[in-house]
Amino acid sequence: MTDIAMIEAAAQRLSGHVRITPLLHAPLLDRIAGRQVFVKAECLQLTGSFKARGGWSAVSALDPQARARGVIAYSSGNHAQGVALDAARHGAPCVILMPSDAPAVKIANTRAYGAEVVLYDRQTQDRDAIGDQLAAERGLTLIKPFDDPQVIAGQGTVGLEIATQAAEAGVTKAPVLVCCGGGGLASGIALALEAKAPGLTVRTAEPAGFDDMARSLAAGQRLKNPAATGSICDAILTPMPGELTFPILQRLAGPGLVVTDDQALQAVALAFTHLRIVLEPGGAVALAAALFAPDLPETVIAVSTGGNVDPATFATALARFA
Amino acid sequence: MTDIAMIEAAAQRLSGHVRITPLLHAPLLDRIAGRQVFVKAECLQLTGSFKARGGWSAVSALDPQARARGVIAYSSGNHAQGVALDAARHGAPCVILMPSDAPAVKIANTRAYGAEVVLYDRQTQDRDAIGDQLAAERGLTLIKPFDDPQVIAGQGTVGLEIATQAAEAGVTKAPVLVCCGGGGLASGIALALEAKAPGLTVRTAEPAGFDDMARSLAAGQRLKNPAATGSICDAILTPMPGELTFPILQRLAGPGLVVTDDQALQAVALAFTHLRIVLEPGGAVALAAALFAPDLPETVIAVSTGGNVDPATFATALARFA
Repeated sequence: MTDIAMIEAAAQRLSGHVRITPLLHAPLLDRIAGRQVFVKAECLQLTGSFKARGGWSAVSALDPQARARGVIAYSSGNHAQGVALDAARHGAPCVILMPSDAPAVKIANTRAYGAEVVLYDRQTQDRDAIGDQLAAERGLTLIKPFDDPQVIAGQGTVGLEIATQAAEAGVTKAPVLVCCGGGGLASGIALALEAKAPGLTVRTAEPAGFDDMARSLAAGQRLKNPAATGSICDAILTPMPGELTFPILQRLAGPGLVVTDDQALQAVALAFTHLRIVLEPGGAVALAAALFAPDLPETVIAVSTGGNVDPATFATALARFA
Repeated sequence: MTDIAMIEAAAQRLSGHVRITPLLHAPLLDRIAGRQVFVKAECLQLTGSFKARGGWSAVSALDPQARARGVIAYSSGNHAQGVALDAARHGAPCVILMPSDAPAVKIANTRAYGAEVVLYDRQTQDRDAIGDQLAAERGLTLIKPFDDPQVIAGQGTVGLEIATQAAEAGVTKAPVLVCCGGGGLASGIALALEAKAPGLTVRTAEPAGFDDMARSLAAGQRLKNPAATGSICDAILTPMPGELTFPILQRLAGPGLVVTDDQALQAVALAFTHLRIVLEPGGAVALAAALFAPDLPETVIAVSTGGNVDPATFATALARFA
């Protein structure tokens, strides 16, 4: 299981290969929020999301023979791009299984990072069967998006950076709001902060209707979302909390926060105006919670997890809220 | 006159008050450029542009009595916001003279940073006369936008950071492309690099039709632009090179680069897609040159100077080029 030693070892392996992202703030944004809001800008990470960390951690932790045979991942989005680039930079063959109806630009980018993209039809084909067969034929190692100890350790390096940067900013006690799908990033950050900055406590942030983590934390057991799609926050619509990530968050995280799609879009617009960063809606839910949730303390930290947004969605956010 | 000692002294005064901005890059952007492009993201600076550096440098260099009387600046844009915030954080009174037809959001933001905004009518009123009278009545010190040794020293701290960050990235020889209005930033960076990274050479970047610096450098004397307005790159449309900045650039800078408005807009769109930062057109001309200018070497550094762009202009860039 992931622990602080694994996270620190991952940080060593990641050093020089991923970016230390800045902790941003803006006086006029604080005024809108009515509190001091620090934003950990993981949208500025290589490939546009924190997923490049977990990918690098997992690929670099493989034994050299397994790495030489290659890796495989299932994803239509940020995990695909992170694993594709990280495998390429390790010289490891990489297959990404993507639904044939994934956005063309994401397919093109994943290929551009050097991966072999295998498309499947969501309606008629069984993704896991195709993946299992490819993995068996070629000896590929599956890199899961969140329920993998080395992936959690890689994402946890965000927490190490937050601990250092918050201390530099004079912040030792605050909630750390984290956009949450399966919980890989949130659980990794929670483990890092437990060891390095125990006054900083993770709280997950999710879109309304897809608040499986918030409900699971409240119920004390893993609960599913009623639907698979239907929010603009596509990057974090995971069916239910991870088997590995949930117990970590149950032990370390505060109650989950929930925001509406409109609040996420408004956070996208405010980040454009006041921080000059590009967020995708799913990467903006933690900032939305920091801005709009009641009953938060005077100082909060929000992790803005990704910025791979199609131009039309971004233009809509600006037209409605900027 | 500004020298490396003044720049290093400014860096001491700025420490902890302005942001060390990241040096970004993206593999897919390099592919489009056909070269390795590093981007110094000054759009992530407080107030959204490098102007917060020069403002802090100038205000902090005043003697305490002058500072207590206050400062005045003329600007409709980034210099206004930088000086307004920096004066407020020093507890210094601040008057900003803005044309009454300046964008409402810029007037509102300058006020929100704590400045007293005095509006004047461009057609019927004499800005300098109003400013001189206010300065005399209240004992205010004028903070010029570029032709001031302490302002140049403050902007030069960008060069100190580039020297360190480029070395960390293994880059010791490259042109450093800098968006250029009056030349305060370009000359400050040139002085810093001369002392700290002599293999890095400044080249100014300007919009077509407003290439007074490029023509002046070629002619060996300060030449004016034929027009005052007419480019989308409003932040850097200065009538002619500065009296203090031009001799510095004449001695240290390579030939000036010129890009079209469309190339600037395309750079805005590519920075959105591949770097997830928000640039204004005038803050993107150096990146445009890095992407589209012929005859540049394999590795270049572009300083992206500002991100205060109105949503409609940004949406246009995305619709046309993203």
